[in-house]
Amino acid sequence: MFELTIELQTDKGKCLYEQIYEYIRQEIREGKLQQGERLPSTRSLAEYLQISRSTVDVAYEQLLSEGYIEARPYRGYFVCKIEELFRLEEKAGEQGTLAGENTDKRAVSGETYTYDFSPTKIDMSCFPFGVWRRINKNVLSDDNIRLFSKGNAQGDYSLRETIARYLHASRGVNCTPEQIIVGAGNDYLLMLLEKILDKNMSIAMENPTYKRAYRIFQSFAYLITTVDMDENGLKVSELKKTDAALTYVMPSHQYPTGVVMPIGRRSELLKWANEKEGRYLIEDDYDSEFRYKGKPIPSLQSSDKNGKVIYMGTFSKAIAPAIRVSYMVLPMKLLEAYKEKCFFYSTTVSRIDQKILDEFIRGGYFERHLNKMRKVYKEKHDLLLEGLEPFKKAFDITGENAGLHLLLTSKQGKTETELMEAAAKQGVKVYGLSDSLVDGDTARKSDTVILGYGGLEETDIQKGLEALKKAWL
Amino acid sequence: MFELTIELQTDKGKCLYEQIYEYIRQEIREGKLQQGERLPSTRSLAEYLQISRSTVDVAYEQLLSEGYIEARPYRGYFVCKIEELFRLEEKAGEQGTLAGENTDKRAVSGETYTYDFSPTKIDMSCFPFGVWRRINKNVLSDDNIRLFSKGNAQGDYSLRETIARYLHASRGVNCTPEQIIVGAGNDYLLMLLEKILDKNMSIAMENPTYKRAYRIFQSFAYLITTVDMDENGLKVSELKKTDAALTYVMPSHQYPTGVVMPIGRRSELLKWANEKEGRYLIEDDYDSEFRYKGKPIPSLQSSDKNGKVIYMGTFSKAIAPAIRVSYMVLPMKLLEAYKEKCFFYSTTVSRIDQKILDEFIRGGYFERHLNKMRKVYKEKHDLLLEGLEPFKKAFDITGENAGLHLLLTSKQGKTETELMEAAAKQGVKVYGLSDSLVDGDTARKSDTVILGYGGLEETDIQKGLEALKKAWL
Repeated sequence: MFELTIELQTDKGKCLYEQIYEYIRQEIREGKLQQGERLPSTRSLAEYLQISRSTVDVAYEQLLSEGYIEARPYRGYFVCKIEELFRLEEKAGEQGTLAGENTDKRAVSGETYTYDFSPTKIDMSCFPFGVWRRINKNVLSDDNIRLFSKGNAQGDYSLRETIARYLHASRGVNCTPEQIIVGAGNDYLLMLLEKILDKNMSIAMENPTYKRAYRIFQSFAYLITTVDMDENGLKVSELKKTDAALTYVMPSHQYPTGVVMPIGRRSELLKWANEKEGRYLIEDDYDSEFRYKGKPIPSLQSSDKNGKVIYMGTFSKAIAPAIRVSYMVLPMKLLEAYKEKCFFYSTTVSRIDQKILDEFIRGGYFERHLNKMRKVYKEKHDLLLEGLEPFKKAFDITGENAGLHLLLTSKQGKTETELMEAAAKQGVKVYGLSDSLVDGDTARKSDTVILGYGGLEETDIQKGLEALKKAWL
Repeated sequence: MFELTIELQTDKGKCLYEQIYEYIRQEIREGKLQQGERLPSTRSLAEYLQISRSTVDVAYEQLLSEGYIEARPYRGYFVCKIEELFRLEEKAGEQGTLAGENTDKRAVSGETYTYDFSPTKIDMSCFPFGVWRRINKNVLSDDNIRLFSKGNAQGDYSLRETIARYLHASRGVNCTPEQIIVGAGNDYLLMLLEKILDKNMSIAMENPTYKRAYRIFQSFAYLITTVDMDENGLKVSELKKTDAALTYVMPSHQYPTGVVMPIGRRSELLKWANEKEGRYLIEDDYDSEFRYKGKPIPSLQSSDKNGKVIYMGTFSKAIAPAIRVSYMVLPMKLLEAYKEKCFFYSTTVSRIDQKILDEFIRGGYFERHLNKMRKVYKEKHDLLLEGLEPFKKAFDITGENAGLHLLLTSKQGKTETELMEAAAKQGVKVYGLSDSLVDGDTARKSDTVILGYGGLEETDIQKGLEALKKAWL
């Protein structure tokens, strides 16, 4: 057994567990700790380093979860097979990420940025773990064998009924539970939609748009046409010039621009869909829960009288990303196509998880959680907006009042790359708009950056803003 | 509040709860019970009918789950909105099924068959609910926020590591965790595979084969060629005459024939794949856990030296259908294609569920459960085989010694339809082989029926056999 020669530094700004984790990881990467070697027990390492055993536990846990070491019952922790690690390194090490890492690894290892204005992170600190646990326990405590069966392909009726009611009350969506398909994430539901619709569709998307959806449609070999936006969203006059049969929109809060499509433009869009058989609108209502000013805006689907809108939403954003439950509301005609062409596809969500979610909503906890999060996010939003006052000379601020991000556009002709680099030097990560530009347009010079605030604590928003002042003003 | 005038019949062959359930359902359907009307409390109805309250509970539960009634806290049960119900009727009532019904509804209402030799049902009575609940509780009790994040697209590294070890130990599969993709069911993983592989593949399948997979490949617009089988499985000599680039096989226990492919035929198959760039074998190892005689048969993947086998498996069969966790092991070359073409597809399994499953396997509970189930299913298998002795004059019995079903082929030229109808008259459901025949072959006259035994209790296997004697001998 080897001797670890870590020198822990208490003033380095890194937690002790990180230092231990990084030290051992480095030793393994460099081959100083070899395959099959046993690590000291957590107890002996803790004694040796004069720190708490739980700190060592956390470090080992991290190494375990990343596959550097393995636990053998009654024997201890051992360094994993080296050839696997080498492969890891080859495949992903270059990009500074570890294969098998979690999406939030960067936040954990904290290597790069002190303040990350990510537009996709959310705040989990207010999640009602206690309630979730209790419902979970109740659902499982019945020894309910039926819940362990596969269940309906569209999702359990009870959950679909709950979703239908929720969507009607909160978003004005008109549908029966029969029209709802529950699936493990929007990506899967789009895959299913591909099977429901005709092959080789042509689809119109706003530009910029949600890049993940764009990539998915690309992987379908759809013909994608991008349509420019003005301050009211997608230009329907431009859309009419295309051959598109499908149009993907986010009318309640477009990503990334934050544009809210007014009723006039919505009517135009529906009119376009009505003009021809086989035309449909995909409404991705991805973050409609969070609106901080003015009345909530009903969904596009609620204005649709002719079965032209495919409505999509998710619980991943409003509850937790781990909750892989999204839903899609199909117009009756597409529901028939689904039943004909896709009836054999099994459900992708476990009935147990469906039941827990169902109870969470029916019990009123979802509403309570949403209201709470709306307040939490509004406070962050207001704090950010207030803190951005001094930036207004140099930047236009848009996309505020809803969602979890807003946009800063330089009035002085600075490019997003310049802005991002200057921010990075101050330890702040902001996101370029061009990440969301698609088609030939990726070359378009962007002078806009995105600041997300969902995942940041209020003090970090303030500190991040101070750092951005140094970077940009 | 209305008065229910149910007359319960104890000699009708229907459980009491079914009679209550059907009565109330009928009243609602006919509009005699109207929207918003309150049902009697379970206590008062139980007293009125002089039956146990739990019987009423079960009936109400059923009505609840089907959306006929709703529960309002502290107030009781109310009839749901009529317009929704009318829509239900229009859409699905015709086919004699209720919209939103669970897949096991027939078994619950028990209208048609007393003994159902379903080849897809499994035995959940031995499921270690207690352990599952405890792990569930432990996983959630950490308030582990990280688990509520989305996680790695391929599945959490720790679970993939566990699966890699399990597959190596039990099936001889050679892979690293990096090659594994975890997904919510085989159907989803096949959809993902479609995106990884080239468009418009031509695929060869055995005939008969697993119909769900056939339908999925159909929905991909793949060119499907069927290849006949002999007693060693798919005829590679026939396969060579096709243009197929992909071949879908179940070498360890073909569904539905139960044929185990011997090593010689496996080598031929691998040789076929090696002969040309871009050829792959999909090995669906759907029920390899259950083998009752002889040594376990290693996977085809274990003999593959050139990265030609895409290995697929699932926990839905060995643990529970609700566990929507399947896995796919990609050859390195396809893994590269996955990373290039599909990196943006999010995971379809919640990290919480992944963690529970991981702990279940790492804690040794999965192995224990498998061993137990192997014993349980072996006993059912042996009992069925023994009970089939008198049938041997009239039938050839095949496909035994593994899986959860076997096949009876008439020696007297009876068709499967004749056999199924005669069985049905005795209240027994058996399944025709022609359900699994695909392509033009659906017209092929089958004289073979499938008897599954996984979901039947031992006494029901015996009684079912008695009834089949009356039907067939």
